[in-house]
Amino acid sequence: MGTQKTVGEFGEFALIRRISEILGLNSKEVIVGLGDDAAVVNLPNRPLVITTDTMIETVHFRREWGSASELAVKSLASNMSDLAAKCAEPAYCLVTLGLSPETPIAWVEEFYQTLARLRSEWGVEVIGGDTVRSSQLLISITALGYQIPLHPIENRTARIGDRILVTGTVGDAAAGLEILQNRAPKESVSDVDTFLIRRFQQPTPRFREAMRMIETTTPTSMTDISDGLARDLPKLCHASGVGARIHPQRLPCSLALKDYARERAALYAWKGGEDYELLFTLPPSETDRLIGCWDDPHCPLTVIGEITSPASGIVLTDWNEPSIEGFDHFRS
Amino acid sequence: MGTQKTVGEFGEFALIRRISEILGLNSKEVIVGLGDDAAVVNLPNRPLVITTDTMIETVHFRREWGSASELAVKSLASNMSDLAAKCAEPAYCLVTLGLSPETPIAWVEEFYQTLARLRSEWGVEVIGGDTVRSSQLLISITALGYQIPLHPIENRTARIGDRILVTGTVGDAAAGLEILQNRAPKESVSDVDTFLIRRFQQPTPRFREAMRMIETTTPTSMTDISDGLARDLPKLCHASGVGARIHPQRLPCSLALKDYARERAALYAWKGGEDYELLFTLPPSETDRLIGCWDDPHCPLTVIGEITSPASGIVLTDWNEPSIEGFDHFRS
Repeated sequence: MGTQKTVGEFGEFALIRRISEILGLNSKEVIVGLGDDAAVVNLPNRPLVITTDTMIETVHFRREWGSASELAVKSLASNMSDLAAKCAEPAYCLVTLGLSPETPIAWVEEFYQTLARLRSEWGVEVIGGDTVRSSQLLISITALGYQIPLHPIENRTARIGDRILVTGTVGDAAAGLEILQNRAPKESVSDVDTFLIRRFQQPTPRFREAMRMIETTTPTSMTDISDGLARDLPKLCHASGVGARIHPQRLPCSLALKDYARERAALYAWKGGEDYELLFTLPPSETDRLIGCWDDPHCPLTVIGEITSPASGIVLTDWNEPSIEGFDHFRS
Repeated sequence: MGTQKTVGEFGEFALIRRISEILGLNSKEVIVGLGDDAAVVNLPNRPLVITTDTMIETVHFRREWGSASELAVKSLASNMSDLAAKCAEPAYCLVTLGLSPETPIAWVEEFYQTLARLRSEWGVEVIGGDTVRSSQLLISITALGYQIPLHPIENRTARIGDRILVTGTVGDAAAGLEILQNRAPKESVSDVDTFLIRRFQQPTPRFREAMRMIETTTPTSMTDISDGLARDLPKLCHASGVGARIHPQRLPCSLALKDYARERAALYAWKGGEDYELLFTLPPSETDRLIGCWDDPHCPLTVIGEITSPASGIVLTDWNEPSIEGFDHFRS
């Protein structure tokens, strides 16, 4: 207190750490509390996972980049992805929309029609929410899901020697965002660009993959990649009190990303956010066992590095870029 | 679809109705779903109540009107009030803050220090949330509470002949807001004004009163008064398919409000919002029984009218004001 430091000077990590300090420890009923992407509370036989995510116009998206339907997919997907990282089956959500009086009703209808479609596709019931007046379009969703018992998954229990894995491909969404930012209005885009834009606008939350994973093994730690590997991996390592060594040449990049970014593909894969893939850790033997029986061609699993001692920090092998740091929402 | 009508032309009621139509019926596990202020889902022996409320700078408040601590109280109170209306004991909440990089850390610290204090006072644990970048300060809270079993309370089960009651006094918050809007910066205020401003900035959620109430009886319907009686009563009547007759001279007004508004006190009591008192209905015999044993001098219960047939609509006896309509967030 007393200091006139600002949120921008503090940065996101320090801010979240400070909030956790002020609020202190959670009660015994809380299995996972502050400092994780989703909370877990202990209900009889059924741990309940709760998560919330907010998207604001001009900060997180521009309306001209996509339809109401695409925004509905994206905002719900970011919450489903947090449930997936806790191996929770989606159950309910509350949806808050901040709208200006000038918003066409047709826009709102398209948004909710998409949520109605996703309800059956993703098994998530809209049970409430709020509509508020706002000059910037605002979408805030809270989602609840039931965690499969006996699989308590957190982002803070990675162990030295564990392998680091990711689902799918990374870096696509960042490339898609860049294309949207740079293209002229109504400019036509190539098939490659369309794929990357789609990955940014309509990500696939990996909750089915998470469920399939725990039929074979239980990750020692897991998070989704919403802020990019360069931020989400250090966060997981910090929470677990460990370091990590990453092999950038192993980062799984899509053919579209390689075509778009060429030799810089690994940079997109490391620093880019909003892929909503899962980042998780497993002991070597469990890694072999899981990969040995993983037969999903649409969502490969890739070992990208190893957990090391905390003193080593985060190391990227053969990394020629000037920095390994990711994007800070408050500092940029 | 096809129409280019806007949210402002539609108004809040029609918008919420349209959203409910699109999303359709909820599943069997959902006891109370869309169209209510809070949702109730069926967990083993413990119905869980979930609610969410969002406040946005310039739309819902101005930063110069109050401290971070006052905003923390108010934003959490609005959620606790929704839990109270479902007779639910507060348990958890998720807090999302939208901040600009220029926000002083001291502001954020004061906000969370107040939440830490309320945690023990109101019994609500902060288990998660989100911090996002936003040009306007934004506070969005989702709260969860356990409903006392065997007391399923909704806003849609009022019956013809029921008495209509409110807790505490109404209209104070609207007067407090008016004082804040009209006073010059640093202008000193009277004790009366201080009381009214405090009622606007630091409302008392009535969850303890709701718990005490169900020791004696179960309301046939209940909601909190967040948008004002003039909006919340028609909403409750619409949901229940009934009408109502209100006696404005019976509306419970504080001495401070009477001093401030004189002969217009009933107008503030009817149209003013954000009192966060409870509005509920009971059969006449149950009303007598509850009032007969109610001994809380800090929070009186007052009968303000009766539920009538739907054909009668909403009627105010001896009402000399030009309109009975309340404030629409999107139309104003």
